[in-house]
Amino acid sequence: MQTIRQLSAKIVEHKLFQPTIIILILINAVIVGMESYRGLYENYGNWFIRIDTIILTIFTIEIIIKLLASRPMRLFFKDGWNVFDFFIVASSFIFMGSPFVTVLRILRVIRVFRTISVIPSLRKMVNALILTLPSLGTIMILLGVMFYVFSVVGTFLFRDVAPEYFGTLQHTMLTLFQIITLESWASNIMRPVMAELWWSWIYFVAFVLAGTFVVLNLFVGVIVNNFEKIEKMENEDEEPEDLQEEVHMLRKEIKELKDLIKNR
Amino acid sequence: MQTIRQLSAKIVEHKLFQPTIIILILINAVIVGMESYRGLYENYGNWFIRIDTIILTIFTIEIIIKLLASRPMRLFFKDGWNVFDFFIVASSFIFMGSPFVTVLRILRVIRVFRTISVIPSLRKMVNALILTLPSLGTIMILLGVMFYVFSVVGTFLFRDVAPEYFGTLQHTMLTLFQIITLESWASNIMRPVMAELWWSWIYFVAFVLAGTFVVLNLFVGVIVNNFEKIEKMENEDEEPEDLQEEVHMLRKEIKELKDLIKNR
Amino acid sequence: MQTIRQLSAKIVEHKLFQPTIIILILINAVIVGMESYRGLYENYGNWFIRIDTIILTIFTIEIIIKLLASRPMRLFFKDGWNVFDFFIVASSFIFMGSPFVTVLRILRVIRVFRTISVIPSLRKMVNALILTLPSLGTIMILLGVMFYVFSVVGTFLFRDVAPEYFGTLQHTMLTLFQIITLESWASNIMRPVMAELWWSWIYFVAFVLAGTFVVLNLFVGVIVNNFEKIEKMENEDEEPEDLQEEVHMLRKEIKELKDLIKNR
Amino acid sequence: MQTIRQLSAKIVEHKLFQPTIIILILINAVIVGMESYRGLYENYGNWFIRIDTIILTIFTIEIIIKLLASRPMRLFFKDGWNVFDFFIVASSFIFMGSPFVTVLRILRVIRVFRTISVIPSLRKMVNALILTLPSLGTIMILLGVMFYVFSVVGTFLFRDVAPEYFGTLQHTMLTLFQIITLESWASNIMRPVMAELWWSWIYFVAFVLAGTFVVLNLFVGVIVNNFEKIEKMENEDEEPEDLQEEVHMLRKEIKELKDLIKNR
Repeated sequence: MQTIRQLSAKIVEHKLFQPTIIILILINAVIVGMESYRGLYENYGNWFIRIDTIILTIFTIEIIIKLLASRPMRLFFKDGWNVFDFFIVASSFIFMGSPFVTVLRILRVIRVFRTISVIPSLRKMVNALILTLPSLGTIMILLGVMFYVFSVVGTFLFRDVAPEYFGTLQHTMLTLFQIITLESWASNIMRPVMAELWWSWIYFVAFVLAGTFVVLNLFVGVIVNNFEKIEKMENEDEEPEDLQEEVHMLRKEIKELKDLIKNR
Repeated sequence: MQTIRQLSAKIVEHKLFQPTIIILILINAVIVGMESYRGLYENYGNWFIRIDTIILTIFTIEIIIKLLASRPMRLFFKDGWNVFDFFIVASSFIFMGSPFVTVLRILRVIRVFRTISVIPSLRKMVNALILTLPSLGTIMILLGVMFYVFSVVGTFLFRDVAPEYFGTLQHTMLTLFQIITLESWASNIMRPVMAELWWSWIYFVAFVLAGTFVVLNLFVGVIVNNFEKIEKMENEDEEPEDLQEEVHMLRKEIKELKDLIKNR
Repeated sequence: MQTIRQLSAKIVEHKLFQPTIIILILINAVIVGMESYRGLYENYGNWFIRIDTIILTIFTIEIIIKLLASRPMRLFFKDGWNVFDFFIVASSFIFMGSPFVTVLRILRVIRVFRTISVIPSLRKMVNALILTLPSLGTIMILLGVMFYVFSVVGTFLFRDVAPEYFGTLQHTMLTLFQIITLESWASNIMRPVMAELWWSWIYFVAFVLAGTFVVLNLFVGVIVNNFEKIEKMENEDEEPEDLQEEVHMLRKEIKELKDLIKNR
Repeated sequence: MQTIRQLSAKIVEHKLFQPTIIILILINAVIVGMESYRGLYENYGNWFIRIDTIILTIFTIEIIIKLLASRPMRLFFKDGWNVFDFFIVASSFIFMGSPFVTVLRILRVIRVFRTISVIPSLRKMVNALILTLPSLGTIMILLGVMFYVFSVVGTFLFRDVAPEYFGTLQHTMLTLFQIITLESWASNIMRPVMAELWWSWIYFVAFVLAGTFVVLNLFVGVIVNNFEKIEKMENEDEEPEDLQEEVHMLRKEIKELKDLIKNR
């Protein structure tokens, strides 16, 4: 058992291990892209399936080796990206032979996301992006409350006038999401509703103003976040506290000096 | 009287007081959301009304207790959020039994905004967002002047050509608001007008350029505002003036030292 | 002559002078806004004209007084805002009695912009906004070159396919301006052209990418500009050079001290 | 040979050399702009061709002189802008007399881009803009992976429902590019697809959220980049390390002083 673990660790750390996986992911990406062309799929469908089976096998072996290589096996699942890899490969087995070809295909496409889990710089960046999300928590809740209140009000007010946009709560929510992206909010949504209820502009203008203001502050939050991170890194280099302490010490020593001279 | 005040204060400070209110607001939100579905309302309408009566009663009691708990009663109304809570609950009584079902419903939805007044972090954030508004005052007035001038000019120039967009002053203002969000400004508004008056592009391009430039500076104002707040907080920690003063004191002491040695 | 000058200066500096002008501008704004309503104009048109004559008279007197109040009269025209005021009032006289009612009306509306020249904080802000423009000069030229090249290329390529968008150079320029605001660039402009010339997407995607990238950098320029201004103001308070110099002087003095002790 | 080199260098460094080239580029720009008008071209086409021949000749001579002026001739091609100039002029000769009039015309238009290579400040700015691109590399790859995965999934899911938008992989990519600019993403693309497949909103909302979030971070990257450059330039002036070192040296010297006094 010990030897298997050591062997696995050696394989994982081999300098060709990661590039091989990256190349396989790229081949997988190309295959799945080619499959999306009907003509190619009809003629070479069998080849695609064969190559896919080979890739899936190698990916399975890869994960087993990685699992074996991590000292306490639980450690493997502590990294979110390993869990991500594990589920992507595992799900391919679960849906194997199922009649839902589309599900299987989408799973194969999602494997391309493994580029992120395999290339360290991408992994780092995505981790950083995800880490900014919790700091935006409060403003997200605020946006959520705003969305919910405007959705319920919008449904009550406009469900009879524009059922395709405000028919049910979920329709209204989608419509509000569209409005917050400012896409056709006036020409397609507000103006037809206004033709029936002239005062409806208050609702739309209020939502656009409040929504863009909150979203703007969400964006500002992301920007400020980034700057704070950078400044923190810079401040660690500068160590201004040391300077202050050093000047403080200086003063103490001069006092001692003075006492020394006086008391002689 | 004293005992009632003390009892109220105890209730308000009880650790379960706030969570109870939050849960009631959530129930209120769910109920009002469910009401927006026609089928549910027709079948369970009575239940919704009953639960609503209960919630309204508890909210009323809550506000009375809070009112009693604040030492000089006026203090309660000094906090804008308390006033907000008070009016939301009071208005439900005012419109009670009125034939405007929609008004009552909207009042019930607006109660969901109480999430903000109840959860401290949300309250703080909204307070902060509102506080940034006055610092944007000057640029708001500028935007207002620009809007008004372009509205009057637009009405004079295009009211015969495109009455649905420029018919009256208020129509033009709404249209300009749509243009500043860049929604269909060219395809739906400028191009049809240009088909009649070819020179009208000057008006639209001028407004888009001036408008987006001013709005951009409004956004920059918000961003700069946020950074200044953060920098102020950081500078309070650093205390660079102390450092300078300390160095200055140092120099004085060394001068004394020199005199001491010289005069011996 | 001297007495007139002194009298004028007294009037200009009177604490009620500026508020009176602001109120007159507001009345002018309201009148011109009311005129845009057909019904009001037909019934009260004469009144509007009378009030306008009074306001114009007062504005003329105001400018004459201001002119008299400035010691060397040329100084009055050194401030761009005074020139602005002068031309707005003067133009009303030039076009007086002309058959172009719309021109006269627009001149009357533009007077509302005098709010900016009269209220100091607005004046300052607009001055600041205008001052940021020259620092954006280089990127503006770059944007101009890009616009021109894409316009000529677009006209050559698509003038037969979509004459309403790319018929002549000026049409293409307006279309490119619309594309840079991302308004209907794909649905109304690119897709119909692509239906004829499938490769045309290269032109549009290239322009959208290059355009938004340059405009983004223009925006970043505005933001950076604002921050630099703020930092400059802050640095003037901090005077870090003094600190460094003070420490340097300290070191010198200690050296002297050492020599003093050694040489005793 | 030596004399030719010296003569060329003298010409290149002459103060009228650069302005002449700029004026020629402007004339070239105007000519090519006028050519885009059918009427002008039919009447004055010969003149345009003659002026173009003259300009091309002068540009050729210019490049030959510049080539001769650079000491080791290879040095000329080390500057990307020289290569750019060389290819633009060379290509005009390659396509000379070819039947593709449009290609020749576009080459003539692209010469206007030489404004950038000739005016130093523009050259510097474009160099700076291009230099920011590699630092955005990681987020570009991330965006690429996201685009590819969503393209393949979109093609599989919606190719039968909306072939004009999701027919093939390249169609879907263009559609996703349109969606990321938020242009008609809901009204023209999502809503028609939703009419067939109600759950398709998940795909679109997910892409809009993920896409705008990543693009936002791309923008933030550009802004942060610009600030870091500025701060670096400022820090080089401040030299805070020197200050710290100086204080450190001060302390050492005082220690020596103390020892000096003690040991006497």
